Amino acid sequence: MLVLGVDPGLTRCGLGVVDGGPGQQTSLVEVGVLRTPAADDVAARLWALERGVGEWLDRHHPDAVAVERVFSQANVRTVMGTAQAGAVAIVSAARRGLPVALYTPSEVKASVSGSGRADKTQVTFMVSRLLGLSDPPRPADAADALALALCHLSRGPALARMRAARQAAAAAGRSLR
Amino acid sequence: MLVLGVDPGLTRCGLGVVDGGPGQQTSLVEVGVLRTPAADDVAARLWALERGVGEWLDRHHPDAVAVERVFSQANVRTVMGTAQAGAVAIVSAARRGLPVALYTPSEVKASVSGSGRADKTQVTFMVSRLLGLSDPPRPADAADALALALCHLSRGPALARMRAARQAAAAAGRSLR
Repeated sequence: MLVLGVDPGLTRCGLGVVDGGPGQQTSLVEVGVLRTPAADDVAARLWALERGVGEWLDRHHPDAVAVERVFSQANVRTVMGTAQAGAVAIVSAARRGLPVALYTPSEVKASVSGSGRADKTQVTFMVSRLLGLSDPPRPADAADALALALCHLSRGPALARMRAARQAAAAAGRSLR
Repeated sequence: MLVLGVDPGLTRCGLGVVDGGPGQQTSLVEVGVLRTPAADDVAARLWALERGVGEWLDRHHPDAVAVERVFSQANVRTVMGTAQAGAVAIVSAARRGLPVALYTPSEVKASVSGSGRADKTQVTFMVSRLLGLSDPPRPADAADALALALCHLSRGPALARMRAARQAAAAAGRSLR
């Protein structure tokens, strides 16, 4: 199963594709960062991101896309750029009929390192370990995109089963929650 | 000149097309609201918005698109939905090569009513007046989309001239600011 992880941002948007599945060594397929110039207007930047994400989707044909869920942060300005870039990635995947999963930063950290409060060094270390890399992934700021993809590989199947169970229960007129 | 105004939102996204220009009565072409079900996941909602906005763009072929600039607000949750929906509208226009202008709510209010702190009633009243409507536009929550389009009609040409002057000055090695 191929998963594209997206760490959204207007200035830097991290992208990472990993391959894995039950009983299979998880491997790195491609990692990179899309950048858009801060001097450009928002429309030009979002459109450049859309084309960049589209190229990755069409090159790799992932089975699913995992995007960081934007969460309440101190800096509203940053949140907005992240939310806008994330929306472009989400809609690019949805338009191609691909399932999209959203994970908060702490869900991702907990999934790859066991702690929702792991720092960047810890996350990068664990991403390298889980992917069997001898050196940390380059560029460094794309490690989060790989962590998102790894998080989906480990959590996605369970979440999909839960969703299917909830839908079946709802269809049967009962509720699991 | 046809302008599409977009008041972005995941639950309700207001759209309004107005026609106008120098020495010409400004008129309402179409106004409406796109809604997406809160029970759907974000990917499905953003994709539904993209298709809806795309239909409006392809039906009206506006000369420009004016979108609300999301600004710091108290509720980060609301801001994020607005930023995501706005990003979808912006990128839909940019992909079609249309110029996109962003205006803050107070710029819009000041442009149509003379006060950046005008309330909803005042804005709706002035939108009706400027468009020569005998009744307020329906649906009511799309009045903001019309106000955005009207704001662009009155401010867009001046902003375009300023931008051209700045670019010319920059090209000449000088700076206006």
